[in-house]
Amino acid sequence: MVNRAAIRETYGCIRPYVRRTPTIEVDGDDFGMGGVRLVLKLELLQHTGSFKPRGAFANMLAHRIPAAGVVAASGGNHGVAVAYAAMKLGEPARIFVPTVASPTKIERIRGYGAELVVTGERYADALAESERWAAQSGALAVHAYDHEETLLGQGSVGLEFEEQAPEGVDALLVAVGGGGLIGGIAAWYEGRVPIVGVEPELAPTLARAMEAGRPVDAPAGGIAADSLAPRRVGELMFPLAAQWVERVVLVSDEEIRAAQEALWKTLRVVTEPGGAAAFAGARRAGFGKRVGVVVCGGNTTAVDFGRA
Amino acid sequence: MVNRAAIRETYGCIRPYVRRTPTIEVDGDDFGMGGVRLVLKLELLQHTGSFKPRGAFANMLAHRIPAAGVVAASGGNHGVAVAYAAMKLGEPARIFVPTVASPTKIERIRGYGAELVVTGERYADALAESERWAAQSGALAVHAYDHEETLLGQGSVGLEFEEQAPEGVDALLVAVGGGGLIGGIAAWYEGRVPIVGVEPELAPTLARAMEAGRPVDAPAGGIAADSLAPRRVGELMFPLAAQWVERVVLVSDEEIRAAQEALWKTLRVVTEPGGAAAFAGARRAGFGKRVGVVVCGGNTTAVDFGRA
Repeated sequence: MVNRAAIRETYGCIRPYVRRTPTIEVDGDDFGMGGVRLVLKLELLQHTGSFKPRGAFANMLAHRIPAAGVVAASGGNHGVAVAYAAMKLGEPARIFVPTVASPTKIERIRGYGAELVVTGERYADALAESERWAAQSGALAVHAYDHEETLLGQGSVGLEFEEQAPEGVDALLVAVGGGGLIGGIAAWYEGRVPIVGVEPELAPTLARAMEAGRPVDAPAGGIAADSLAPRRVGELMFPLAAQWVERVVLVSDEEIRAAQEALWKTLRVVTEPGGAAAFAGARRAGFGKRVGVVVCGGNTTAVDFGRA
Repeated sequence: MVNRAAIRETYGCIRPYVRRTPTIEVDGDDFGMGGVRLVLKLELLQHTGSFKPRGAFANMLAHRIPAAGVVAASGGNHGVAVAYAAMKLGEPARIFVPTVASPTKIERIRGYGAELVVTGERYADALAESERWAAQSGALAVHAYDHEETLLGQGSVGLEFEEQAPEGVDALLVAVGGGGLIGGIAAWYEGRVPIVGVEPELAPTLARAMEAGRPVDAPAGGIAADSLAPRRVGELMFPLAAQWVERVVLVSDEEIRAAQEALWKTLRVVTEPGGAAAFAGARRAGFGKRVGVVVCGGNTTAVDFGRA
């Protein structure tokens, strides 16, 4: 069961391995959003530059790891996180990534000592390959979003956020790819705070699922394709979203890029497109006076000190 | 008097105008510093990308602003902060900056609507010009570090840090240019936590002052010259440093650059050289098991989303 008690228990297991990322409260005026207070959860400061290690450690600490180690498929950040967690726990890892993965992420996976297999154009192709290999080798498959432990681990972002913003928020905005992060957070809050999903217009997995009443295939493109563009949301997250995600906002690639620029210019926070998507959604009006935003990833090649 | 009570009172005045920047606790292992816990104060997330608005607002809120407005001289960040504070408070500002100032900082000063005068090679030249103009126009001079209000404002970084790390640290590392930040923090802690200054080898203002027993001229060069290279530390900060700064560590330009790289690679925090200097100092051994670091500036041209 993915619920509050299980998330708390999982958090107790993974806490020694993850950073408790800070929140910062900023004035919406700074970003042209008058009258709004923003509470930003800076989860991009997590190990490996995204929230994904929470789920990776949750999986690996919940199971005995076979001799073949672990295997994962990933648009990038999950692969990096599994490689990192395997390194920390001293286990072998093999990571399948689609060709769309960013060079930064590929470099990191290699840097953590995992075996890297670049295969197929989209996440789904890499996933199919990884499943074949898991069946053949006996390696433990760590799913990017559609495992109970993954949801429990990502849900700890909600647990921390509530401790850091105990007075609550009028809405908490969370980017959606496969839905592991928002599913876990929704399960943590159980409706006590309105959870809003934010997706790229070009990768509307949760929006399409909500329309259809079940996970269905959606386009998987756009500027955040390396992190927010699996083909569909997970089966496990969908009932959580259906019950507790208040709505889904779609943002354009231009809005995501503008959000990246604004977060850097005004707050000195560097995000990847998927990491800025929830903030892009928050810039739309109508979420209330006090708005929470999970800033969930910072793996970009936009930084080069050699040119400063 | 620059002391704890005055810093607390000043903080009450400036609090509505400044961000309470977060701390994050990280494992020194992540940075090759085994057995150390680091508590990083992410003051680079402050308005304008550095701690300087604290002192700027402290000055402007403590005085009646004359019709001619305010004037400041600055290697960059202080000028940006005064321009920002003047904009927020609806007052005119004229900022004198040396030619060494970074393009990012000059662009920001203009962006906040201040009048900009680029003059002289070093901070001291810009300061002399600004003083002439203050005398002539009657504008309120806001000193980058050697005003009581400036020290009181910067001291609020210490106040917040203590609230955020109430269990204390074995040492708190702070970068030094003119010494306003470390002077204020030292005054806040009054010796209850060992304060360590970190300076570029090529701009050792506090180290030279400590040797001489008074502020003396020092070289003003190196990679962080646009923020940590005034000619000497302030007269007001020196007695505070002499009493409460435990020691001064000098770091090379290479160490500063490596610290910038490490903070980005391992924590996804983008700093300017002056903002990474204290962290560079922390990478030297011998500060204890739990080490605080003020990460005090993020104004760099190293970020370009167009190339991501």
